[in-house]
Amino acid sequence: MKAVSIVRPGDSSQLIIEQREKPIPKSTELLIEVRAAALNRTDLLTRANTLLKAPYPILGVEVSGIVVENPGTDKRFKPGTRVAGLVNQGGYAQYAVLPVDRAILLPENIGFDCGAAIPEVFLTAYQTLCWLGELKPEETVLIHAGASGVGTAAIQIAKHIIGARVITTAGSKEKLTVCENLGASETINYKEEDFSEKVLACTNQEGVDLILDFVGASYWEKNIESLKKDSRLILIGTLGGSIVKEVNLLELLTKRVTLKGTLLTPRSDAYKAKLTQEFIKVVMPYLELGTIKPVIDTIFSLEEVEKAHRYMESNENIGKIIVTI
Amino acid sequence: MKAVSIVRPGDSSQLIIEQREKPIPKSTELLIEVRAAALNRTDLLTRANTLLKAPYPILGVEVSGIVVENPGTDKRFKPGTRVAGLVNQGGYAQYAVLPVDRAILLPENIGFDCGAAIPEVFLTAYQTLCWLGELKPEETVLIHAGASGVGTAAIQIAKHIIGARVITTAGSKEKLTVCENLGASETINYKEEDFSEKVLACTNQEGVDLILDFVGASYWEKNIESLKKDSRLILIGTLGGSIVKEVNLLELLTKRVTLKGTLLTPRSDAYKAKLTQEFIKVVMPYLELGTIKPVIDTIFSLEEVEKAHRYMESNENIGKIIVTI
Repeated sequence: MKAVSIVRPGDSSQLIIEQREKPIPKSTELLIEVRAAALNRTDLLTRANTLLKAPYPILGVEVSGIVVENPGTDKRFKPGTRVAGLVNQGGYAQYAVLPVDRAILLPENIGFDCGAAIPEVFLTAYQTLCWLGELKPEETVLIHAGASGVGTAAIQIAKHIIGARVITTAGSKEKLTVCENLGASETINYKEEDFSEKVLACTNQEGVDLILDFVGASYWEKNIESLKKDSRLILIGTLGGSIVKEVNLLELLTKRVTLKGTLLTPRSDAYKAKLTQEFIKVVMPYLELGTIKPVIDTIFSLEEVEKAHRYMESNENIGKIIVTI
Repeated sequence: MKAVSIVRPGDSSQLIIEQREKPIPKSTELLIEVRAAALNRTDLLTRANTLLKAPYPILGVEVSGIVVENPGTDKRFKPGTRVAGLVNQGGYAQYAVLPVDRAILLPENIGFDCGAAIPEVFLTAYQTLCWLGELKPEETVLIHAGASGVGTAAIQIAKHIIGARVITTAGSKEKLTVCENLGASETINYKEEDFSEKVLACTNQEGVDLILDFVGASYWEKNIESLKKDSRLILIGTLGGSIVKEVNLLELLTKRVTLKGTLLTPRSDAYKAKLTQEFIKVVMPYLELGTIKPVIDTIFSLEEVEKAHRYMESNENIGKIIVTI
C-alpha cells in the first residue's frame, strides 16, 4: 500500500511516499481503508524527532475511512461501515488499523473529510474543557488560538454543549470573525491588544475561570493576570516557548490556581478509549445535528503532503488541514 | 476580657496583651470561653502585615474551649460543651466566637491543649491530601517539613486513614524519628541528602504521585524531578521563597503534572464549614480512638505569647505550639 514516512528526521522535504505492507489487525482492531487523514502538530514533531531510528513510522494519528476487516466480536463495525478515530501512528496511508474501542461511527451527513477532522481536536477539546478544566455553564473560559483546530472545536463545545461564556484570542481579523461565528462572545487580536487587559476589562476586572493555552512561556504572565480566584490553567502546547523566566508561586497560591499540563497523543490506549466512548455519547449527537461542526481549512491530496506540512508550519490555517487518500 | 493584639505591625515585640470587649455571638455562632489557642504561620503574617490599620485584630485562628452561649438552634452545643474549631481571627483571647458549622465536639479523651492543636493542621492536611491531592491507597506521597504541624497531621492521615506510602523530609535526626513514628516509610534529611535522588532511588526511579509542599521556590526543581507521570504538586506555603527563576513548562506537559496552590485561612466560611463537617465524619473517629494524634511541641501561657512567636520563627518546633488561656 502507499504510505507516508520520512527519509530521515528533519523538515518537510524529508517526507516520502513509499510502498509499505498492509497492516494486519489484532482481534481488538479494525482494518480501515483510509479515505482521509488530518494533520496534527504531533506529526511535525514526529517528522523532526532525531531520536527515531529506521525503519521510520508511517505518520498520522487520525483517520476516517471504511471498515474492511473486523476480526473481533463487536458487530457494530461490519465491513463497509464508515468510521473515524485516533490511530497509534500509521494514518497517512491507504490502510490503517484502528482500535475498535476508539472507532466513532460516522453519521450519513458527515463526509470523510469532516470525519477525519473530528477525533484529535474534538477529543482534546472535550478532555481539556470537561475532564481537566471542569468548565461549568456559569463560567467564562479564555481559549487561545481560537482559530486553530483545537480552538475551533473548544469554542463550540464550551458554548453550545457546556453553555459557558467564551473569550478567544487570534492573530487576524479573519480568524476572529470565524471565532465569533463559532460562538465566542469576545475576541481579542493578540497582535494589536494586550489580551490580559482586555480579559479583565470584559470580566469586571475579575478574570476568567479557565484558560485553554497552547502558547506557554510567552503568555505565562498575562495568563496568570487573566485568571480569577479558584481558576484553572490547562496547558496543551508550548508554541510560544517552554521556559518561563520567572514564576511567582505566591500568586498561584493566593489565587488558588490549578495548573495542568497535558498532551493527548502520549496517553494510554485505555484513556483514549474511555475518552472516545464518553465523547460519542455526549458530543456526537451535536455533530450529527450540525449544531457543532469541524472546521476545515484546506484539503490536500496524499501526493501534496509536503505542501500540507509546510502550510501547517506557516500558521495561516483556520481549522483543520486534511489529506485525502 | 484579656486579648492579644499588636501595638503596630512588626516583629514579636509588637505583641500586646490588652483589655477588649467580649464578642457577641450571632445566631450562627457560639460564644466560647477559650482554654487554648494554637499558633499558626498566618498569625506571624498578620502580626507583620503593614497594610493593617488600627484598631488591630485579636490574633489567632483556632481555639478549643467551652461553649458559654449558643443563641442558635443547634442543640448539640449546649453551654458547657467542649469544642474546638477555626475562628475568623480573635483566637488569642479569653472569649471568641466560633461559627457553629465549624465547631468540632471534643471527645472526653482529648484535652483542650490537644483540641486546639487539631483544626488548622488536620483540616489543611485533609483538604490537601484528599480534596486537592486525591491521594489513593496504592499511591506514594512526599510530605515536606514532615515534623511541622501540617506535616505531622498529613503523615498520619496519609498512612492511617488513606493507607498510602509516605516519604517525608525534615532537617534533623530527631524530627525524622518523629516522622517515622507517625507512619513515614522513608525519611530524608534534606540538609544531608538530595531529596529528589533519594525519592527516585526508593520509588524505582519512578517518582511519587503527590507532593505536599510548604517550601516553594527553593524546592521547585527537585520537586519536579521527584514527580511521576500524572502526578500532583500541592503548594501550601512558600517558606523557601516564591520566585522560581526558571520553569520548564514542557516538563509539566510531558509529565502531565497538576499544580495546585492553596491556602486554608482565606477560604470562604462555606468552604471551611463543608470541610469541617466532612472532617468530623471521616477523621474524628480516628482521633477519638487515638489511632492518630495531634503532635504538640510546647505549651506557653498567654503571657508568654511573644516568646511563643519567637519560638515558631526559630523553626525548631516538632508539631504545634499552644498558648493556654
